[in-house]
Amino acid sequence: MTLQGVSIIGSRRGQGSNSAGKSINPTNNEVIDPDYAAVTPEELDMAASLAAEAFKTYRDTSGEKKAEFLRAIASNIEACIEDLVVRMPLETGLPEMRVRGESGRTCGQLRMFADLVEEGSWVDARIDRAQLDRQPLPKVDTRSMLRPLGPVAVFAASNFPLAFSTAGGDTASALAAGCPVIVKAHSSHLGTAEIVGLAIQKAVADCALPEGIFSLVYGSGRRVGQALVSHPAIKAVGFTGSYTGGRNLMDLAAARPEPIPVYAEMSAINPVVILPEAAAANGATLAEGLFGSLTLGVGQFCTNPGLVFIHVDAVEGIAVKLGELVSASSSGTMLNSSICQAYGAGLERLKNHAQVQILAEGLCGDQGNQAIPTVFQTTAADFISSGNLTEEVFGPATLLVTYTSDEELIRSFRSLGGQLTASLHGTNSELAEHVRLARVLEDRAGRVVFNGFPTGVEVCASMVHGGPFPSTSDGRSTSVGTMAIGRFTRAVCYQDCPDVILPDELKDANPAGIQRSEV
Amino acid sequence: MTLQGVSIIGSRRGQGSNSAGKSINPTNNEVIDPDYAAVTPEELDMAASLAAEAFKTYRDTSGEKKAEFLRAIASNIEACIEDLVVRMPLETGLPEMRVRGESGRTCGQLRMFADLVEEGSWVDARIDRAQLDRQPLPKVDTRSMLRPLGPVAVFAASNFPLAFSTAGGDTASALAAGCPVIVKAHSSHLGTAEIVGLAIQKAVADCALPEGIFSLVYGSGRRVGQALVSHPAIKAVGFTGSYTGGRNLMDLAAARPEPIPVYAEMSAINPVVILPEAAAANGATLAEGLFGSLTLGVGQFCTNPGLVFIHVDAVEGIAVKLGELVSASSSGTMLNSSICQAYGAGLERLKNHAQVQILAEGLCGDQGNQAIPTVFQTTAADFISSGNLTEEVFGPATLLVTYTSDEELIRSFRSLGGQLTASLHGTNSELAEHVRLARVLEDRAGRVVFNGFPTGVEVCASMVHGGPFPSTSDGRSTSVGTMAIGRFTRAVCYQDCPDVILPDELKDANPAGIQRSEV
Repeated sequence: MTLQGVSIIGSRRGQGSNSAGKSINPTNNEVIDPDYAAVTPEELDMAASLAAEAFKTYRDTSGEKKAEFLRAIASNIEACIEDLVVRMPLETGLPEMRVRGESGRTCGQLRMFADLVEEGSWVDARIDRAQLDRQPLPKVDTRSMLRPLGPVAVFAASNFPLAFSTAGGDTASALAAGCPVIVKAHSSHLGTAEIVGLAIQKAVADCALPEGIFSLVYGSGRRVGQALVSHPAIKAVGFTGSYTGGRNLMDLAAARPEPIPVYAEMSAINPVVILPEAAAANGATLAEGLFGSLTLGVGQFCTNPGLVFIHVDAVEGIAVKLGELVSASSSGTMLNSSICQAYGAGLERLKNHAQVQILAEGLCGDQGNQAIPTVFQTTAADFISSGNLTEEVFGPATLLVTYTSDEELIRSFRSLGGQLTASLHGTNSELAEHVRLARVLEDRAGRVVFNGFPTGVEVCASMVHGGPFPSTSDGRSTSVGTMAIGRFTRAVCYQDCPDVILPDELKDANPAGIQRSEV
Repeated sequence: MTLQGVSIIGSRRGQGSNSAGKSINPTNNEVIDPDYAAVTPEELDMAASLAAEAFKTYRDTSGEKKAEFLRAIASNIEACIEDLVVRMPLETGLPEMRVRGESGRTCGQLRMFADLVEEGSWVDARIDRAQLDRQPLPKVDTRSMLRPLGPVAVFAASNFPLAFSTAGGDTASALAAGCPVIVKAHSSHLGTAEIVGLAIQKAVADCALPEGIFSLVYGSGRRVGQALVSHPAIKAVGFTGSYTGGRNLMDLAAARPEPIPVYAEMSAINPVVILPEAAAANGATLAEGLFGSLTLGVGQFCTNPGLVFIHVDAVEGIAVKLGELVSASSSGTMLNSSICQAYGAGLERLKNHAQVQILAEGLCGDQGNQAIPTVFQTTAADFISSGNLTEEVFGPATLLVTYTSDEELIRSFRSLGGQLTASLHGTNSELAEHVRLARVLEDRAGRVVFNGFPTGVEVCASMVHGGPFPSTSDGRSTSVGTMAIGRFTRAVCYQDCPDVILPDELKDANPAGIQRSEV
């Protein structure tokens, strides 16, 4: 496939004006053709207008048709997997196996939403029929269901070039809800975005849907990203990235004449607690599990365990084994040089912190942008008093915190912001005695993990990949799993509405054949 | 009942320091004893601390127990109905019948939420069981459900001293969700708030629940209201009132170190469209219906129809009849002098508007704070070009807008902000030809009404009393009906969680006996 290096505007291609740069191979810092052209303001406006126009019909497109479309996207991505296997490792340093695995997850996610909307009951249809003889006043007929919000802006993530990017979870859930999508590509993997973007563009044509359902734009976050979020046609935003980037979009969206919801998944250090009996009984196994979770994907997962609380009397076994594993480990190539520089700065901060000791670090390889696995240690008392050890260090680093009592542990948690996950390891009897601690963890997280590590997010109906601020902008949401579709909807009530105007899901005869709550 | 004029802080009473003023009888502007003491910062902090402490157990209180509590509140309100019948009309100018009616609605609402949480399936429990033999990796057990957010601040509304105030919809839905509540009383009906607050305080004691579940505080919005929303223990806000007040709270909540959701129901002009065949066929009936909706409760409902689009060729019959009804109507006492002054200013603005004609106005009575029903008229062309006719005039005033084509009608709608409701009148054949117009109305509203008027909000499962900004701060929410409970929750996922720690709703044996989605 020959990449053209320009935006996708509905069924067309942009021309662009300024350069949005080239991708850079993080293993050797070499630039990769082609040069990408930033979307022009006129092209962006065209994408938004096409999206608004497409929404007029896509909002009422049947679940069957949306399912066909989502499955067509998945098939078209699979059809270009060999192009992705060539391009994506060059841009990201990620191995071929990861490309195939993440592509599988991405297509699986698209098909999961296809199944969801084909079945159709997700709209939470509620029907309260009229009661004309009710006293003192007759009751009108009211019916409600979830309806799509309108065009959605999606910001691709650096660390999941497929599963959280062009055709990732935000795009899949918005398209499933009935919302057109405009994706802003991430500067780290411009070509991967184009390959996937073309697969979606082709699916729109394959299914004879209005072209404005999908566009993909290139350009800087500051200029293009902000213009997108400020555009009056845009009704919601999905974002995965840094706290600074997410917070900027939150503030921008809140200051619009018509504020719109922003679903930003931002930063987390995913605390892990290991209770003493579990630590004593399974120290080596826990150290191995922690090491695996910590170094998975060179530590570049939002669920990376950056903080591990272990009772001081039981820390030694785990610390020794983890130290051995980390010392014998090798560095890995990070996704890009800014992530690598930020990781280096984070390590320096911890190395120079008076209350933190370095426990172990791995070996450095000879490619570019290497992240060396590193483990630090401190005490809960120092953790609480210093107050500046709660910031995410994005990469394969973690901080062991030794605590002396449950009260100290709970105080430590109180100093933490919201998290995507919190994990608790304990024997059966320890867990039974720590229900209150589990609720303290729950207060800080969207997902509470027991006797496991936080990396590895199941894509299923009960998954919550979200959590209180600042892990996300909106702790009531999830960006993974079927519940993610709810983010791009609002309930609408139809009162005494004729059947001909009601959406199919609410018509008397229930032509969509869905489950409804009826009174 | 002797009113004490101080805040309710859990099971105690505040002392207060500064005065928060007295209620004023709007019919004669006389002040009514007692003087109310503003809550002190220490008392407010005590209320917040008690709420946070109460949340530790109330979050896990069973649906049965919460139902008992909500029903106890309703019974205790009914037990003091004669006190309310004496006090509330003095403070609000509302008639005894309204006190009894609104009390019935308030208690009905509390019992509706009691039924909802007693049944229990509202938590959207989802269970994806482990699959240990799944390839390439085993699947963990994940379970999710909606869990309460934490203590909620509720701001009482001026216009519904019972149904949207101390024990109103926000309080009922937050308590049902498992969240403690701190209500800030409205300065218009201080005594009504105290009577209802004591009924809730007694219900907490009757049910042997932790005292911090409920507090009621007095004081200014600027000082006490802002301190409440800024308090770190508060996790969500419910508000019904003006755009300015709501927007201030939104901005304050968004600027907190930990931003929290604000559900503010603010302002709406609830456009009504009357298509020409319907206008020609039923002009007199439509005029009567519009007059009734317009003047109900002296026009002081958030669903008051402030804007009526009628085809120019069919306007005459309705305009003449409506003019007759309004000219023969009498003014009514408004809730307080600031609402009355704002209404007067709104009328003056329209009377002095070059593109607006006055069609009819009612007669003025001799009590204080009178609102005279008034109807204005303009053309859609002038409505669109002037751009300043979309502001709410809170009271019994409406603006007829004559349009010449569906395109002009749609352009008029595009200039409107979000609304609580939009109404469409047409014959069967007209409605069948106006599906696209219905979608334009839907884009601007939370509830779309057909051949009816917007006042009269059913309290039921399918009701949406919400709508796009600026009608509310969060167009994904409703403040009436069972869906309102969702506002004070977030989904939490438990991974491989032992039964002893899982909330009852997710335990293997399903002791709560609720409907769950299981795979």
